[in-house]
Order: sequence, then structure tokens, then C-alpha cells
Amino acid sequence: MSGSDKPNKIVPLKGKKEDAAPAHFAGLELPTFEAGWVWLAGAGPGDPGLLTLHAFNAIKQADVIVYDALVNDAILAFAKSDVEKVYAGKRGGKPSAKQRDISAKLVELARQGKRVLRLKGGDPFVFGRGGEEALSLVEAGIPFRIIPGVTAGIGGLGYAGIPVTHRDTNHAVTFVTGHMAGGDLPENLDWAAIAKGSPAIVLYMALSHFGEIARLMLENGRAEHEPVAFVRNASLPDQQVLETTLGCGVADLERKEFKGPAIIVIGEIVRLRQSLDWLGALEGKVLKTDPLGNRGELDAG
Amino acid sequence: MSGSDKPNKIVPLKGKKEDAAPAHFAGLELPTFEAGWVWLAGAGPGDPGLLTLHAFNAIKQADVIVYDALVNDAILAFAKSDVEKVYAGKRGGKPSAKQRDISAKLVELARQGKRVLRLKGGDPFVFGRGGEEALSLVEAGIPFRIIPGVTAGIGGLGYAGIPVTHRDTNHAVTFVTGHMAGGDLPENLDWAAIAKGSPAIVLYMALSHFGEIARLMLENGRAEHEPVAFVRNASLPDQQVLETTLGCGVADLERKEFKGPAIIVIGEIVRLRQSLDWLGALEGKVLKTDPLGNRGELDAG
Repeated sequence: MSGSDKPNKIVPLKGKKEDAAPAHFAGLELPTFEAGWVWLAGAGPGDPGLLTLHAFNAIKQADVIVYDALVNDAILAFAKSDVEKVYAGKRGGKPSAKQRDISAKLVELARQGKRVLRLKGGDPFVFGRGGEEALSLVEAGIPFRIIPGVTAGIGGLGYAGIPVTHRDTNHAVTFVTGHMAGGDLPENLDWAAIAKGSPAIVLYMALSHFGEIARLMLENGRAEHEPVAFVRNASLPDQQVLETTLGCGVADLERKEFKGPAIIVIGEIVRLRQSLDWLGALEGKVLKTDPLGNRGELDAG
Repeated sequence: MSGSDKPNKIVPLKGKKEDAAPAHFAGLELPTFEAGWVWLAGAGPGDPGLLTLHAFNAIKQADVIVYDALVNDAILAFAKSDVEKVYAGKRGGKPSAKQRDISAKLVELARQGKRVLRLKGGDPFVFGRGGEEALSLVEAGIPFRIIPGVTAGIGGLGYAGIPVTHRDTNHAVTFVTGHMAGGDLPENLDWAAIAKGSPAIVLYMALSHFGEIARLMLENGRAEHEPVAFVRNASLPDQQVLETTLGCGVADLERKEFKGPAIIVIGEIVRLRQSLDWLGALEGKVLKTDPLGNRGELDAG
């Protein structure tokens, strides 16, 4: 890549065309996936029902799908039968793909005249390095489209019955990634300010650093008994939720042998799960009516 | 409502059944909307293509849709022809609905044995008071399902070419609502900590308070030249983006006669729009290749 800052004109390449038609939804026209383009899409937290219509339309038409570890087979099943699937995950037993290699691969595939779908878990712009990949496309003059998705820190928590905001508990929520590219805790974050600024904190990719983060929270005024939830496989049939506190989180993770990847949420909003665990209710769980103990007062407005 | 905290068993009512069938997507089975249930769904920022498959499935089957100002006709057009539409918006010239009245209406409609879809802009749990409405349903013993959506602060900004996170600029992002139920600036927020804690800040419903918020940011160490963007009608054909700075924002809003509702974003991420404005590129805009001036160094990893 050049690293220069001269503007690149985006000109679609002409390439092969296969039997791909846009999806139709009762009169809604969705875009045609042109050859030589890259669409950078979020697949949501896992449940295929949380794909957007645009993402569904993209998967249906793609010639090649470059996908992450968090994109599951039920989602890839919507693709054409002759779709080429390229795994670019950074997790699990498979070899890890470098970011630079992924970007180069997208450019290479687009230059072959393929309809290239880069499919990421959640939303491509929420700790997904979608911006970096898009910048590489701009640099190479590859035309692209961004398809936002439901991020796990919102939609995945919604499946656990935890609203990221609630009028009685928080008017702000902070999303933080728990690790740098190298796997370390981000050092340029002001954890004291984060602890003080936001009653609710959602952590991505932070399980291995949770002990350190909990310590930073406690040192900066958060209470030991403050609720914490860990949500693994959010929105999927094997979703697991571990409810604990800042003080007991590390011990509980160990005791329950809780494994990632997981979304972590810190804050009073976790208490609302007692009432809003609608998935649990589908299986017979009895929901409480007043999780914060204030329904009498706060009903107006 | 009782305000008591005794647990309520969720028992679906038997009601009338109309000609509603779940949507099908190449083998994916989506849930049947049962009579007497309320589904609380997010419609995304505006583009119907950003509906989730679950939300589409919900709209198709609903007997009645209780919808907000930010839900548009193109989305409601997916509904059954005899659907009952109930406007519950809090904006514009129409009379404002009180939160308590909306919750009571949902309970009443469900008790009539209808399939009740509560459809909100964005995600129901992101400053959408979805939690409050769901608590009212629990209290009344109405069975419900939550359908997360793409929130405007992520997906809407994505349509403006602004990624809410980017490895070179921010490992954290804070979402804040700019007003209380009464229309005031939330007073229980630590704006100093927010200013220090998060390099990127996304403000919902904050246009009328922007001057005050900008002042608080500047007083707490943020720079006058820090980029700010206002995005109106995010993801819709008439999307408007105003790029300015913390120092010039108020004057620019006035000069351009910029009106809400709008999502506001503060942070270096706004600069990435020079490169990632893919909607602009679709209309011929030439994208820059190095918006942060560091592509030479930061390509590995």
C-alpha cells in the first residue's frame, strides 16, 4: 500500500457476473451486488434473525464471503451454493489471520471481479476493525458499501434481558474494548474517568483482563457489590449468562469455569434481568415485577 | 399498576387469530406471533434495509403496531393491510403521548388478544424507554419478546461514514442522552469524567443542549478544534451531515439552520468521514486515502 494521501477515484471493475439477484421484501428494493465491489457488513451477535435485510441481501448475492469466528454456519447457509468461504477469524484453534493480510485479500478478491462480502460479527465499526479494512479499500480504489449490524453489546445484552440504558439507572453507557491488537489492556484509556463517567460499562473482548479492570473500577469508586454479568454466545441457543458482582467476578468466573468469548456488563442495569429475561420466561422462568424497588414512585412522565 | 414486587407468572392469553404467518428466509424459521403477546422491537435508524429479519417478521404478523416518530412509512408498509397503527411519538406537531399511557395502551391491546408490536426507532434499549415498557408488561402479566435493532448512534453514523470506534483513535465510546424526560440536561451525569474518559462521545436527543454540552467538554480539556458531526435523518435518502468542531458547533448550527432530530458525535473519528463516506462515493465523491495522516506507520498487526 502506498501510504500516500492523494485522493483515489472509486471506479467499479467489470468482472464476471453470476446468478445473483437482490432479495425482495414486499416491495422493498435492495441493492444489486456489483462485481468487483466489497460490502463490509455486520452479521449481528449470532441469531440469524438479527441479520439486517441488507446483510441478508448481501449474503444471498456474494461470490465470496470473508468471515470471522463469530459468524456462524446458520448465517452462512443463506449464501449461494457455489459461494467461496474464506475464514479470517482470530480466535479458536485455527491459524490467526493478520489484519494486513485480510485487507490485502479483500483487495485481491475484488480485483478478480468478485462480489466480495466481508462479514463480521456484530457491527463492523464497533471494535471490529472495519474502518481499517475500509481504508485499505479506499487506498486500492475498490468501491465499497458499509452495512451496519446489531452489536453484541446492545443486542446480545438484550437477549440476556439487560437493557444497556434505563431511565432509573443510567443516562450514559460506555463501550470499551478490553484488549489491544497485541492482547494487552489498552493503556491509553483513562480508567478512572471511565469508572466515574458512566454508570453502565460494556466490555468487549475483555474476559482475560476482567480481574485488572474490576480492580481499576473498585479503586475508582465503584462498589464491590455492583452487579456484573458475563454473556457468552449471546443470542444463540447455547447463550450462557453469569451474574455476579465486581467483588466476586473473578472468583465466580473461575468457580463456574466460564469461558469466552463473552460480553461483560457492569452496572445496576444488570438487576433488570430479574424482570426482563424474556428468553428465560419463554422457558417458564417467573419474572419479578420490581427489580429496582422503585416502581411505585417512578411511573409517570 | 400495582407497584408490588410479587413475581407474576407469564401466561399467554388466548385471543383472535388472523391470517398471519411467520416470514421465511431460506430455511430459517422465525417465531410465530401469538395473540395476546407484545413484541418490543427496534426498527433501526430509518432505512428499511436496516430492519432485522426478526423485526420484519414481527411487522408482517402484527395486528396492531404502536410506533414512534422515528419509524417511517416505508417500514410500516410491510404490515398486513388491516393492521391497526397507533402513533405514540413524542416529537413533531402531533400530540405527545405520555410514557404511562403508552405502557397502559400496550397492556390493553394485548388483553384484547391482539398481536401487539411496539416498534421503536433504533434499538428499544438505547435511550428508548423499552425497559420501562417491558416492566409494565411484566407487572401486568403480558408475555413479551425483545427484538434488538441497529441503533442510530452506530448504524446511522456508519451511513455518514463515521465509525464509532477505530483502532488509531479510540478504544472506548460513550453514548449519552442529552435530555431527561422533562427536556432538561441530565444533571446526575459527571460530564467532566465523560469528557476525560472517552475519546469518542455520541449524543442522542441533545441538539437543543449542544451549546451547554460543548462548553462542558471545553472546560474539561477537550479542544476547540475537536471534530463534531451532526447527522440528521441518518440512513434515509435525505440524510444530512454537518461537520464542524466543538468551538464552532453552535455558530454552524445556527448559520446552517440545522434542525433535529440528529445524532451528534464528538471525536477524531469524525475525520474518517473524509475516507469512509461510502454513500457520498456512490454519488461520485472522491474519497481521501489517509484521513488521520498515519497510514504509512500503522498498517501492520
